Amino acid sequence: MSAPSGHRSIITLLTDFGPDSPYVASLKGVILSLQPEAVLVDLSHSIRPQEVRQAAWVLAEAAPCFPPDTIHVAVVDPGVGTCRAIVYAAMAGQHFIAPDNGLLSLLADRHRPTRLVRLDNPAFWRAEVSRTFHGRDIMAPVAAHLSRGVGADRLGSPQESLVRIDWPQPRQEAHRTVGQVVWIDSFGNLITNLGREFI
Amino acid sequence: MSAPSGHRSIITLLTDFGPDSPYVASLKGVILSLQPEAVLVDLSHSIRPQEVRQAAWVLAEAAPCFPPDTIHVAVVDPGVGTCRAIVYAAMAGQHFIAPDNGLLSLLADRHRPTRLVRLDNPAFWRAEVSRTFHGRDIMAPVAAHLSRGVGADRLGSPQESLVRIDWPQPRQEAHRTVGQVVWIDSFGNLITNLGREFI
Amino acid sequence: MSAPSGHRSIITLLTDFGPDSPYVASLKGVILSLQPEAVLVDLSHSIRPQEVRQAAWVLAEAAPCFPPDTIHVAVVDPGVGTCRAIVYAAMAGQHFIAPDNGLLSLLADRHRPTRLVRLDNPAFWRAEVSRTFHGRDIMAPVAAHLSRGVGADRLGSPQESLVRIDWPQPRQEAHRTVGQVVWIDSFGNLITNLGREFI
Repeated sequence: MSAPSGHRSIITLLTDFGPDSPYVASLKGVILSLQPEAVLVDLSHSIRPQEVRQAAWVLAEAAPCFPPDTIHVAVVDPGVGTCRAIVYAAMAGQHFIAPDNGLLSLLADRHRPTRLVRLDNPAFWRAEVSRTFHGRDIMAPVAAHLSRGVGADRLGSPQESLVRIDWPQPRQEAHRTVGQVVWIDSFGNLITNLGREFI
Repeated sequence: MSAPSGHRSIITLLTDFGPDSPYVASLKGVILSLQPEAVLVDLSHSIRPQEVRQAAWVLAEAAPCFPPDTIHVAVVDPGVGTCRAIVYAAMAGQHFIAPDNGLLSLLADRHRPTRLVRLDNPAFWRAEVSRTFHGRDIMAPVAAHLSRGVGADRLGSPQESLVRIDWPQPRQEAHRTVGQVVWIDSFGNLITNLGREFI
Repeated sequence: MSAPSGHRSIITLLTDFGPDSPYVASLKGVILSLQPEAVLVDLSHSIRPQEVRQAAWVLAEAAPCFPPDTIHVAVVDPGVGTCRAIVYAAMAGQHFIAPDNGLLSLLADRHRPTRLVRLDNPAFWRAEVSRTFHGRDIMAPVAAHLSRGVGADRLGSPQESLVRIDWPQPRQEAHRTVGQVVWIDSFGNLITNLGREFI
């Protein structure tokens, strides 16, 4: 009953639930109920509520530090209850589960997805699915099943592309470079979207 | 020296210590010293200081998502240093350790305790017990011993009932339903005590 | 590939990165990439930015609760990018990795270091080392290698002493005792540097 790969039991969580809510613990309980071997790692639960863009950036920064086959679950989901899809993406040798609202699109710009699946197979969901908490009822159980070796193709139907968000692109002008601040860290450093090729 | 059940090594922690204190880490260190196999899960450490009611609600919401035999340790303890008891309760196939100040009473309303033990056997405490930190000195080591398979009956003496707090009950009036807001989440949703039977 | 001792896989993290940053997750990803068996425990990530003194106090309070051979990684590092050293210290049967800026000196006052190593052997660092994130690029991988059984002597060159910070000392005067408040906890308790010998 152990995961097929040595690393596949690492499951990271990224949400906008805040540190004082029981929602994060609910995700963890659901995952551990299905996959007691899971190694749960918090990416952050302090994303500003419904700020998909901030979540996309945090995920793109942190994910590459994790080992191959890590499963990342990102629940920043302003469209919960609408017809937005929930998607699985294989990128850079890792696994990603998130609402298809642009959250994965920054990462996908850097690491072309090798597989996309629309998570529409309820066989791997909780028995009862609420209208407002698909993180607990769909994404967490799907991540647990994936960690136990269920193939991504069984989790739903193939999907062609991801929803993208309009992400500001740095640009080189005649006498200047124009970029955007994407985050201010706890030290007051302004983190921009200017990679080292601009310096 | 592994836990007798596959799941019994999950130990959750719920406190009002705040994220910047060393107190949470102290609990974790004490538990891991006695039970290196423990899988520690934070429920929340941002309960408002000494707000037993908020802790009771978070615990009642999150615990049911966890697997059977999970051990929950809840340390919101305004009465530390007084004669209030510390109690073990078996409820819904899980284990709970908390001060007997009402923290477990909301859960007990929903899942009748099948066993209650007053944790008064110092054999399972730390050698030295402070007057102000029973979470570290009593509750954490007792949880670790329980996780290692010590029977609840050895941890203290049987107890008949739990202290209850006056929990507001929703009520149906002639032309309206009256409930209370029990929590405001990070999205601004008002969570009330009105279950679906009122809708 | 398991750690040589039963406890050596516990790695604690103490930083001033804040709860909403991807930096903490980056540390965890780097460690788990090298040592999938690591049991990661957050001491705190809410140290006030660059407050070495606060970090020193939290570490000194929490570390003694952990089992022998625990590895503590403390990244509060205002001197990153300068010539300050990064140091390994063995104290009280545990292992500590931190910038040599006084962060370990409060603990060293209580538990004389039995070994000090300047971490200057790049063989155990990440392949590429940034100028601003030695936590991720040096301290995290060194901790992972240590956890896997690499001897401290291989991590760098011996060092004689630690940088110390001017830590206020309580003193006994004729008719009074003078101490300092070192922390205010979430309950409003003022924690002072007056040990029980002053009471």
